[in-house]
Amino acid sequence: MLEDKNEKRTSLAELGEFGLINYLTDAIKLKHKSSIKGVGDDAAVLDFKGKQVLLTTDLLIEGIHFDLSYMPLKHLGYKAVMVNLSDVYAMNGTPTQITVSLAVSNRFPLEAIEELYSGIHLACKLYNIDLVGGDTSSSTKGLLINITALGEAKKDEIVYRNGAKVNDLLVVTGDLGAAYLGLQVLEREKQVFQANPNAQPELDNYTYLVERQLKPEARKDIPVLLKELGVKPTSMIDISDGLSSEIIHICKQSEVGCNLYENKIPLDPQVISTCEEFNMDSTTIALSGGEDYELLFTIDTEDYPKIKGNPNLTVIGHITEKNEGMHLITRANQKVELTAQGWNAMAK
Amino acid sequence: MLEDKNEKRTSLAELGEFGLINYLTDAIKLKHKSSIKGVGDDAAVLDFKGKQVLLTTDLLIEGIHFDLSYMPLKHLGYKAVMVNLSDVYAMNGTPTQITVSLAVSNRFPLEAIEELYSGIHLACKLYNIDLVGGDTSSSTKGLLINITALGEAKKDEIVYRNGAKVNDLLVVTGDLGAAYLGLQVLEREKQVFQANPNAQPELDNYTYLVERQLKPEARKDIPVLLKELGVKPTSMIDISDGLSSEIIHICKQSEVGCNLYENKIPLDPQVISTCEEFNMDSTTIALSGGEDYELLFTIDTEDYPKIKGNPNLTVIGHITEKNEGMHLITRANQKVELTAQGWNAMAK
Repeated sequence: MLEDKNEKRTSLAELGEFGLINYLTDAIKLKHKSSIKGVGDDAAVLDFKGKQVLLTTDLLIEGIHFDLSYMPLKHLGYKAVMVNLSDVYAMNGTPTQITVSLAVSNRFPLEAIEELYSGIHLACKLYNIDLVGGDTSSSTKGLLINITALGEAKKDEIVYRNGAKVNDLLVVTGDLGAAYLGLQVLEREKQVFQANPNAQPELDNYTYLVERQLKPEARKDIPVLLKELGVKPTSMIDISDGLSSEIIHICKQSEVGCNLYENKIPLDPQVISTCEEFNMDSTTIALSGGEDYELLFTIDTEDYPKIKGNPNLTVIGHITEKNEGMHLITRANQKVELTAQGWNAMAK
Repeated sequence: MLEDKNEKRTSLAELGEFGLINYLTDAIKLKHKSSIKGVGDDAAVLDFKGKQVLLTTDLLIEGIHFDLSYMPLKHLGYKAVMVNLSDVYAMNGTPTQITVSLAVSNRFPLEAIEELYSGIHLACKLYNIDLVGGDTSSSTKGLLINITALGEAKKDEIVYRNGAKVNDLLVVTGDLGAAYLGLQVLEREKQVFQANPNAQPELDNYTYLVERQLKPEARKDIPVLLKELGVKPTSMIDISDGLSSEIIHICKQSEVGCNLYENKIPLDPQVISTCEEFNMDSTTIALSGGEDYELLFTIDTEDYPKIKGNPNLTVIGHITEKNEGMHLITRANQKVELTAQGWNAMAK
C-alpha cells in the first residue's frame, strides 16, 4: 500500500498504442499445435483439428471487481486469466488460448502495465495457454481487462450444466468461502491503513484466505483427475458466485431438485476461526461468498466408489425430483430453501 | 441530441445482472452449424469440423472511441460488430460467432441497453452471426463494449498480411476518407449545438460521410467476389487506421516496399467537395483518416485481367523491393515517403 517515490515511470502516451502492443507481445512464443498464428494480423488463426471449441469471456473493472489499493497488478493479471480458465475446466475441457483487451487511464505508467502482464504471462506459462490477440486502449477512468479464453475438448467429453439426474451425487472440489473472507480481511486492513497510514497490515493469521482472494488457482487438475478415475460428471459448473447460486443453475437447467447437507460443506480451519472472529456464519459465507473457483459437479451413484476418499472431492448432497425443490439440510436437520442470494442464517 | 423527457426508464439495478442477461439473450436463436451451444453455460461450445478458426477482439470506450452526443446507441452496437467482422473478412474468412462484453454506468436505463443490443442483433442478422456469449457489468463511468468475433476458413483460403511479393498490385475496395470527414462534420454540428441549443443540424450535404461514420458496413461481399473471380490475394488487411498505416503493415510484414499513386486513390465526390469546404487535403484524409473498414490487398499481376474494370476494386499502386522503400507518388510526380501518421501535405 506504500508508494515507492523512486519507481521508474515511462508514460504510455510516449510509447503509443502500437509501441505498447509490440512491447507486450514481442516475447510471446506459441506452444499449442492449435495456435497457427497469434498476435500480428487482423485475426489470430487456430486449428482445433475436429475437436470442439469452448469460448468464454469475462470483464473485470477497477472499482467494481477489484481494488488496486490491496490487489497487486501482477495478481490482478493472474486472477483475470484464472477466472476465464475456470469456465473452460467447468466444461471438462482444456483451455488453449486467450485474448486480452486492456483499457488504462494515463495515471498508469508502462511499468504498471508490465506488472499486470507479468501476471498474465505467468498464468499462461503455468496453465499452458497461448496469448494470441487483444486490444489496448486508453480509458477515461481506471483500468479494465476483458479476457476471452478458448479451449478444446472431444465432443463426448464436454460436460454441460443441464445433465444432472435424480439420485446423482452433488460433489464439490477443494473448500469454500475462503476467498470471500480474504476480501473482508483486506477491506478491514485498508480501513485501518486509511485511519493510520503508519499501521502495518496484520495478515499472518489469514494467509490462506488472502491467497485465495488475491491469487486463486483454476482447477486444471480436476478434468485430468476425473479422466484418470474414469468418471464423467453428468453436469458441472464453476463456483464463482457462491455455492448456492451455482447449485441453483445446475438444478434449473437440469430440471431437478436437490438436498445439500450443511455439515458436508468443506471449510478450511482458517475459514471457521475467522468466521468466529468476524461473527459471521460459515455456511452463509460458503453459500454466498463467491470467487472460490472450485468446481461443482454431479455424478451417477454408480461412480461413487471411484471418487470415495479422494481428498480433492467432497460429496455434499444429492439430486432429487424437481417438485421436491432445492434445499439445504441444516445441522439441526431442518430443511431450508436455497436462494440465489444464499441462505442467510443471521437474517432469520 | 434532444432528450425525450417522457422516455421510459427501467433501472438496471432493479433488473440485476442475471435479469439483464436473461432479458438480452432470451430471443437468441443459433443459426450456424458450428454453434453447438450459445449463452447459458460456463462457455459456448463450437464445432468448426476441421476448418481453421479466426479470432479477433476490439474494445470501444465512451469518450475515447465514440461520443454518445451524436452516436445513437443502436448505431454504436451495429458499428461495434462491424469493426470485428471487418477483421475476419480481412483474413478472407467468414465470421460466424461473437461474444459481447458490456459495462454500463447506472446513468443508462434498460431502454438504452435495448437500443444498443438492437444494433448488435441487426448486425448479427444481416451478417449471419450467432451471439454466443458475453459478460455484463456495471461501470464506474460511461459505457464500454468489448466484442470478440470468431470466423472460419479453409486452411488454404486464409490470407495473411505477410504474403505480398515484388510486382504485386496494390488494390483497395470502395472509397476512402469519408468516415473521418463524417466525424469532422458531426463534431462541427455538436459545437454549433452547444453554442445554440435551438440550432438544427445541417447534414443534408454530408449524408454519405455521416453514414460512413455512424453506420459502417464490413465488406462481406469481397471474400465472396474474390472467390467468384478466382483471385486469392497474396496479402490482405482491413483499413481501420488509414490507408498509409495499413500499407506500411503489409510492406513491413511482407518485407517489401511499394509505390502508391495519389491520383489512383478512390474518393467519393462528397469527400472532395467537403475537403474543399473544410480546407483539408483529400489525400491526407484518405491516408490518415481511418475507420473506412474497406479492404486493402495485393494480387499477382497475372490476376489483373480478372479484377480489371470491377467497380468495387481499384488498383492504387504496386509492390517493390524492400530497399526501394514505401512511397506515395504525387499528382506532381514527386516521390514522398509514407509514414504511419500519413503524409501531411499541409505541413510541408
